[in-house]
Amino acid sequence: MSELAYIDWLRQRTPPDPRVPLGLGDDTAALLTPPLSLITTDMLLEGSCFLLEQAGPRRVGRKALAVNLSDIAAMAGVPVAALVSLGLPRRGGLALAQELYLGMRELADAFGVAIIGGDTNSWDGGLVVSVTLLGQPTGSGPVRRSGAKPGDWLLVTGPLGGSIHGKHLDFTPRVREAQALHATADLHAMIDISDGLATDLAHLCTASGCSATLEAEALPIAAAVAAHPDSRSPLDHALHDGEDFELLVAVSPADGQRLIETQPIAGVQLVKIGQFHPAIAGQAQLRLRDATGEQPLQPRGWVHALE
Amino acid sequence: MSELAYIDWLRQRTPPDPRVPLGLGDDTAALLTPPLSLITTDMLLEGSCFLLEQAGPRRVGRKALAVNLSDIAAMAGVPVAALVSLGLPRRGGLALAQELYLGMRELADAFGVAIIGGDTNSWDGGLVVSVTLLGQPTGSGPVRRSGAKPGDWLLVTGPLGGSIHGKHLDFTPRVREAQALHATADLHAMIDISDGLATDLAHLCTASGCSATLEAEALPIAAAVAAHPDSRSPLDHALHDGEDFELLVAVSPADGQRLIETQPIAGVQLVKIGQFHPAIAGQAQLRLRDATGEQPLQPRGWVHALE
Repeated sequence: MSELAYIDWLRQRTPPDPRVPLGLGDDTAALLTPPLSLITTDMLLEGSCFLLEQAGPRRVGRKALAVNLSDIAAMAGVPVAALVSLGLPRRGGLALAQELYLGMRELADAFGVAIIGGDTNSWDGGLVVSVTLLGQPTGSGPVRRSGAKPGDWLLVTGPLGGSIHGKHLDFTPRVREAQALHATADLHAMIDISDGLATDLAHLCTASGCSATLEAEALPIAAAVAAHPDSRSPLDHALHDGEDFELLVAVSPADGQRLIETQPIAGVQLVKIGQFHPAIAGQAQLRLRDATGEQPLQPRGWVHALE
Repeated sequence: MSELAYIDWLRQRTPPDPRVPLGLGDDTAALLTPPLSLITTDMLLEGSCFLLEQAGPRRVGRKALAVNLSDIAAMAGVPVAALVSLGLPRRGGLALAQELYLGMRELADAFGVAIIGGDTNSWDGGLVVSVTLLGQPTGSGPVRRSGAKPGDWLLVTGPLGGSIHGKHLDFTPRVREAQALHATADLHAMIDISDGLATDLAHLCTASGCSATLEAEALPIAAAVAAHPDSRSPLDHALHDGEDFELLVAVSPADGQRLIETQPIAGVQLVKIGQFHPAIAGQAQLRLRDATGEQPLQPRGWVHALE
């Protein structure tokens, strides 16, 4: 089977979509777009971002779309259309591509995403899956990282840590929850937790020019952490493990209090885990408060080192 | 240097752009989009699509954007914004990323493309460069592959064959020429030659439900073919070598005659290389005519085989 036959196979599985005047099979796709589009891209690499034998190709395909959906969620956007590029090993590439697609398709259907294009290659290297996702903003527009203000409350949409034991592959991106939050409160800033709570909170603080203090005892810790005890404390896992794909949200104290009291988002227990403060000497700083007092917190979640 | 420092380095080199309310550094980019957007993506893989040591990283970066620009050209579109995802080797990845970017930047500036996002990863595998490019249609809309009609003339925008000797890295995508053509004639169908003349013409014929006959003696053959003689004939190179990145265009005979006589596109010698005919027994077929007569032509350009 050639790349072209694979594209035919894809086409048969791609439902027509009124938003997509021109889908798979021309030099470009054509998509009806709103005045402002959200666009994100993520590349998953075998051995670095997933272990193919352990995860299986369906879950890898699912994850490749899910991480992009989580980015659209972090802007409170509606996902619309995806392009999927594959670097396939020469042997078994076709079966792999089909499984990847089926994993992606499931999530695409669940979130109304049209798969409109891509590029399929084979090579002597490992599996590469690159997805670009387009979406549109909702309500008052995209929720950026840069709008947190001193005094704001920091909320999180779910428990943290231990994602490596399964959630990093099987999480449901918080797309609907983000839209519901955006419709019910003035979200000052938002980010999804992909690199770890401390690291992503640091990103948000830097973008907002704020410091933040986390409350150690308030942090919701995922059951997977207790189920897989190791030499690190549960708190350490919640602070620094990556790929929780929960949302961190900055809101005014009044909105925060209301959200915590009324818990208006179905399926989500919003938890207040900290508060924003002015930058200290021009620097956005993280601090952690526990029963013994307050100390600086160094982000040490996942950041790709480049040499 | 971390991924974040690299993103800062990128940001310093990314001019502000009124079309991009939100560029590098948030969960997604935000882009002002027209009612209809063109979107394409291409992934280049080391060893399969380029030899890094031979090409050097700047030319690889340039090519990664150029092949996408060629796809936008094939729709007669205007390129607008790109996202760039990298899979970098762990050693030397930063220098590589910077060189790739500088090669891309040059072409982005030449064609008014904003670089609005991406994803940067390192791994144990070879270099991967994946670019997604957004654009907008011009004039009467995107020129598809599917509009060729029996009787139409087949034109090409330049000489073919031997691209492997340099042009596949250094070509200038026919973006401006395509727009100029679209403004001056009713383009029935268009495709860029990436997989080889015969293969890409077959794509166009299949999409249009037409057959086509190529005139062997009319084919313009690139100078690189004669400069690198081998056991294959120059005609064979022109028919089957890939990555010419010239445009194949279907127009009415009247438009074709006018275009050939007036040659209205600066920098391009349009050549009539064939004509479209009705499909034969429901099949789109390619034929080649030379001094000895006419025979069927099998496409055998570059198609990724999947196993």
